[in-house]
Parts: sequence; structure tokens; C-alpha cells
Amino acid sequence: ARSYNITLLPGDGIGPEVVAVAKDVLSLAGALEGVELRFQEKLVGGSALDATGVPLPDETLDAAKGSDAVLLGAIGGYKWDNNEKHLKPETGLLQLRAGLGVFANLRPAAVLPQLVDASTLKKEVAEGVDIMVVRELTGGIYFGKPRGFGTNDNGDDIGFNTEVYPASEIDRIARVAFEVARKRRGRLCSVDKANVLEASMLWRKRVTALASEFPDIELSHMYVDNAAMQLVRNPKQFDTIVTNNIFGDILSDEASMITGSIGMLPSASVGESGPGLFEPIHGSAPDIAGQDKANPLATILSAAMLLRYGLGEENAANRIEAAVTETLNHGFRTGDIYSPGTTLVGCKRMGEEVLKTV
Amino acid sequence: ARSYNITLLPGDGIGPEVVAVAKDVLSLAGALEGVELRFQEKLVGGSALDATGVPLPDETLDAAKGSDAVLLGAIGGYKWDNNEKHLKPETGLLQLRAGLGVFANLRPAAVLPQLVDASTLKKEVAEGVDIMVVRELTGGIYFGKPRGFGTNDNGDDIGFNTEVYPASEIDRIARVAFEVARKRRGRLCSVDKANVLEASMLWRKRVTALASEFPDIELSHMYVDNAAMQLVRNPKQFDTIVTNNIFGDILSDEASMITGSIGMLPSASVGESGPGLFEPIHGSAPDIAGQDKANPLATILSAAMLLRYGLGEENAANRIEAAVTETLNHGFRTGDIYSPGTTLVGCKRMGEEVLKTV
Ligand SMILES: CC(C)[C@H](C(=O)O)[C@@H](O)C(=O)O
Ligand SMILES: CC(C)[C@H](C(=O)O)[C@@H](O)C(=O)O
Repeated sequence: ARSYNITLLPGDGIGPEVVAVAKDVLSLAGALEGVELRFQEKLVGGSALDATGVPLPDETLDAAKGSDAVLLGAIGGYKWDNNEKHLKPETGLLQLRAGLGVFANLRPAAVLPQLVDASTLKKEVAEGVDIMVVRELTGGIYFGKPRGFGTNDNGDDIGFNTEVYPASEIDRIARVAFEVARKRRGRLCSVDKANVLEASMLWRKRVTALASEFPDIELSHMYVDNAAMQLVRNPKQFDTIVTNNIFGDILSDEASMITGSIGMLPSASVGESGPGLFEPIHGSAPDIAGQDKANPLATILSAAMLLRYGLGEENAANRIEAAVTETLNHGFRTGDIYSPGTTLVGCKRMGEEVLKTV
Repeated sequence: ARSYNITLLPGDGIGPEVVAVAKDVLSLAGALEGVELRFQEKLVGGSALDATGVPLPDETLDAAKGSDAVLLGAIGGYKWDNNEKHLKPETGLLQLRAGLGVFANLRPAAVLPQLVDASTLKKEVAEGVDIMVVRELTGGIYFGKPRGFGTNDNGDDIGFNTEVYPASEIDRIARVAFEVARKRRGRLCSVDKANVLEASMLWRKRVTALASEFPDIELSHMYVDNAAMQLVRNPKQFDTIVTNNIFGDILSDEASMITGSIGMLPSASVGESGPGLFEPIHGSAPDIAGQDKANPLATILSAAMLLRYGLGEENAANRIEAAVTETLNHGFRTGDIYSPGTTLVGCKRMGEEVLKTV
């Protein structure tokens, strides 16, 4: 039997609840496809801060690096919101992404037929939306140097950051995006602000140059402000979007909300080699933590992405995705996606229902 | 009679058509309120590039600076899209904003009862939305130095930009925003990425400190990725939003599209003193230029903002806004906002209808 080591990082808030459920689903789907999964659990984020004083202990990063894939719950919470930057839960996540070298963040945003009413967009605008945002995740302004605080020539306090992209970092993310587009509907829209920013001009130039290697892919370019509008106006026009770290942060979240059900959306972050990082896109929702109210489906679907993109175990991945669809068809809903006529269940029960259909 | 000098910058594409119409409306509304308006027309953007080789001729900037207010149509077009940065139409606009020192961009996004169906959002989500985005316009990453192209330690080509905010620039835009919120519903949401960026941490610190001067205003903070989601999920939660240049660019356009009718939306850019710059938010729409199809209402409403925020002529501004409402109530619509049962008109005719009701 093929066997893999998985690092589980439950994190904060509802993280532990949803990861526990996803772990069971992962084990079962694997077992049914002859795949043995071994798990180790480590600390990250606020819970790591409380226990060890840092948001990403070395032990966690080492374990993650040494495993075949990493499944993360969620990080953050009010408690640590006013911490200094190096002691914020978010810093642990950024360090983890950088440490694993997972530069390509795949963010699917598809409107499921069962949940089309969850979208705030009109049915005819929302239905059929199926977008994949490929976000550059370990470069750009979130990591660029110089950064920090200082004083300018007028003696005024300043805060500053650097948006910087080397050609090689643009090329590698663009290549991932072209390949993703090839497995989808063959259209790639690169988003930038090349009418103003030099970093975007280089971005556009490199992406355009790479297109000749992918003659079967239809490449277009869009300014980020326009992209933010077009996602609201007509999201169906998009297939695959590729963009930098900060624009990807904003647009992937906007695209997610178009679906109306962010409790359903997974993500995958992958690098050149080494383990990938898989996590639901929702936050740690401290308000409902520990109450068995969280929707575990985004983490379960992240586990499916882990099997597909992290381990190449397509069959087990399909099994999980089919089980989620069936569970929705059976009418089970957590509070965040509940509508009259469906069956309201908690986090654990939702997990049990998925397990039954795996 | 009070008299003012107005610089008209028709610009490119549909710019000349919509400015011509707005000029007549401005003249009439002024005359009826005892205000004399004198106009001079100058070149900017692509048309300036073609005529003079630069996107903002000195003559244009001097004229604009010497006048009491500036009304701009639109700039840009395919023709100049591949120009080098200093020869892009957009560069002319950025130079104009910087040259006039108009650091505060006011971007209203209100869903009009007559046009609620134009929104792609469900009626119950869209109706009643009334947001004002206050965007910092002359600082941040669009202007920050160092910027440019270079090579990194690995010999790799790089493109880079600097996001930088001095405390004084944060304070002055925040002050404008608090004052705008005071004239509205008293709530201000400051948007940043203070969980990652130092420039945002200083932003949040200064905005928070200023709040003590405005005890009547309810201040909240939101991360930009969340704001992009919340605008889709429940736009009614927002009153006034204040944010930096790049986040403001993205979010103000997203908010505009929530209304479904960007052909209706004006903007005002104002500084500490000196003339303000007033422009519709739509682009130059080269596809329909010269065909009498453009919607002039955004430019007409920009003229109203010019009267209010630029000249302090509240009565004349109200006259124009009331005339636009009445014209919509009469059922006149340009193609972009047309729906069955209304009367389709062109740009000129729409102008005439507004003139009749001014
Ligand atoms: C928590 C934060 C650092 C993170 C980011 O912006 O990258 C989050 O918003 C995300 O998108 O995963
Ligand atoms: C044309 C461009 C430079 C400009 C900007 O981003 O500021 C435009 O998008 C706007 O918002 O007015």
C-alpha cells in the first residue's frame, strides 16, 4: 500500500473542529483506495504563541517540511490582534508558506448548483460561475524588502513596504497558471496594474512572453481595478486568473464571496517540489469556536485537494468530492449555508454524513 | 454675480461628448443661481500626446492650477496602450492629480431607486446601498520611490515599487474622511492590511489616534481582503470608507459596480486648497466614442460635485442633482442603463432632457 505522512495544523478558533472531521474523511477515503495516511499534529498561529511564544515553532516547520503534505485549519483571533508583527498568528502562516516554498496558491471559486441561492448575486449572474484564482503567494509586497518604519526628510514618521518581482518568480507562477488553465477551459486572465506600476509592467511582459509556450491557452490581461468590477458584473467571463500576492489576496476573496458560501471553499498552495499546504479559505471564526457549528466542508474539500495536488491520489480525491456533493444533495447544511427546506446539522454530524457517502 | 473660471479637459474617447453636455448643464444651473462660469478647454491624455507629445502639457497644468475648478472627461485608449510609461495617457492623469495636490478622492456609490435592477446583486442586497469611498490619491505605491527596473543579486531582472505613507499624509486624508462621515451617517470604516504591511500598521495607528478628535464618529477597521468580500456580501453595512491609493482604486471600483451603473457615477478629488478635479469614474470607452451613445450623467453629476465641493455653490449643485433624478423619473435612459419600458436616448438628447429640468 502507498503510504504518506500528513502534518495536521489545527491552529486556532474553529480550526481544531474542522481538522478533526477532515482527518477522518481523509483516512477513510485513503483506506478505500489503498492509501495509508499517517498523521502528526503540530502547533501554529495563536495556539503556538500561547504554548511556545512564537507563531511558528521550529518543530512545526521541520515536521511540515519532513512530511508529504500539510493540512491546516485556521489561524488568528481577537486575543492576538494587537500583538507586534513578529508575534501575530498571521506571521506564523506567512513564515510557513515561505518555509515550505509554496509559491502557487490555487483558489477555486465555483457556485454549486445546490447552493446558488447562497450567492448575493442574481441567480442568472451566479449560476455556472467556476473560477480558479492562481495567486502568487511567497513574493511581492507581503515579503518584499526594504520594509519597516522610519522618518522621512521632513522628520515625519513613515511606514513602508516594497512590491518587487524578479522575472523568475513571475515565470514560475505564470507557468503553473498556464498549466492549470490547460486542465480547465483553456482561458487565462492575468491581472495587474501595468498602467501605473513597474512591478506590474515586468509581470505583464513575462506572462506575455511565456504565452508562446502555451499556444493552446487564450491569454488576456486586465487591470486590477477593472477585475474587481468584472467579478461583480459578470463573473462567468473568467476561467483561470493569475495575479500577484496582494491582488490575489483581494480578488480571490472577492471571487469566493461571489459564490456566497465561503464555508465551502478549499485552497491549495504548492511549490516546485516538497509538501504542499492545504487549507480552507475561511478564518478561525472565534465567535463560534467550540460550539460544533462550523462548516467542515471547506476543510474536507481542502483534504481532497491535498490528495489530488499534494499526493497525486486522484481517485481518493474524487471520492471525497463526490461524497460532499452527495451529502449536499441529501439536504444536509450547516448554519452558514442553511436555507428553509434543508436539514440543519453541526460540524460533527456533517462529517459523519460525508463519511457515510465516501 | 459670483464668477468662476473652469478648466475643461475633455480628454479621449467619449470624453469630449460627455464634457460638452455637462458644460451646458453647468452653465445653465450656474446662471439660474446667479453664478457666472467661464470656461477654457485644454488637452490631456492621449489627445495631448498626439498633439504635443506629452500626456500633460505644461499649458494644461498651468491653466488648471490657475482656475477655480477642473472638469475632466476621460483619458486613454487602445492606441496608446503600449506606450512607455512616461508617454501613457494615464501618466498625464497621475501628473495632473499630483500637480493639483488633490489628495482626497471622493467616490460615491449609491444605488438609485430607479436603477436598482441594473445591479447584478439581488434587489434586497442592492437596494438602499449608499457608500462613499474616500481614497488617498497622491501617495502610496502609485507614487512611492524608489521605483523602476533593475537586477537582483541573482542577476534576475526585477520590477519594483514602494508603498510608503508619512504620518502627515495619513492624517490629512483621515481628517477629510472623518468630516465626510460626519456629513453622512457618522460611520467610518478604515481599510488596510495591518496584519501584514508596515505601511498599513502606521495607517491604522494614525487613523485610530485621530478618532479622539471626532468622538461623534463611529470608527471601525477592516482588512482589505475582507472589505472586498463584505462589499459583495452586504454592501449596506458601509457608510464611509477611507483607504490608501491602491486599495481605494480597487474597492471604489468594486463598490461602483455594486450599483450596476458606472455610467452614473461621479467623483471629486480635492486638496488642502486650490482647484479640485472632478471626473466621471467611467473610462474613455473608445468603442462607442463619437457615436452619441455615451451616458453623460456621470459627468453631469461630476459637475454637481464641482459646484458643491469645488465652488461651494450648494444650490446650483442641488439643482443639477434634482434635474438628473427628474430626468430618470421621466424614464429617459442611455443604452448602458436601458431596460424595457423606458425611453432609449443618446448622449445629446439626455443632456437636453436634463437641461429642461434644471
Ligand atoms: C492572514 C493573511 C496573512 C493571509 C494573506 O493575506 O495572505 C490571508 O488573508 C489569506 O489570504 O490567506
Ligand atoms: C488610470 C489610472 C491611473 C487611475 C488610477 O488607478 O488611479 C484609474 O484607475 C482611476 O481610478 O482613476
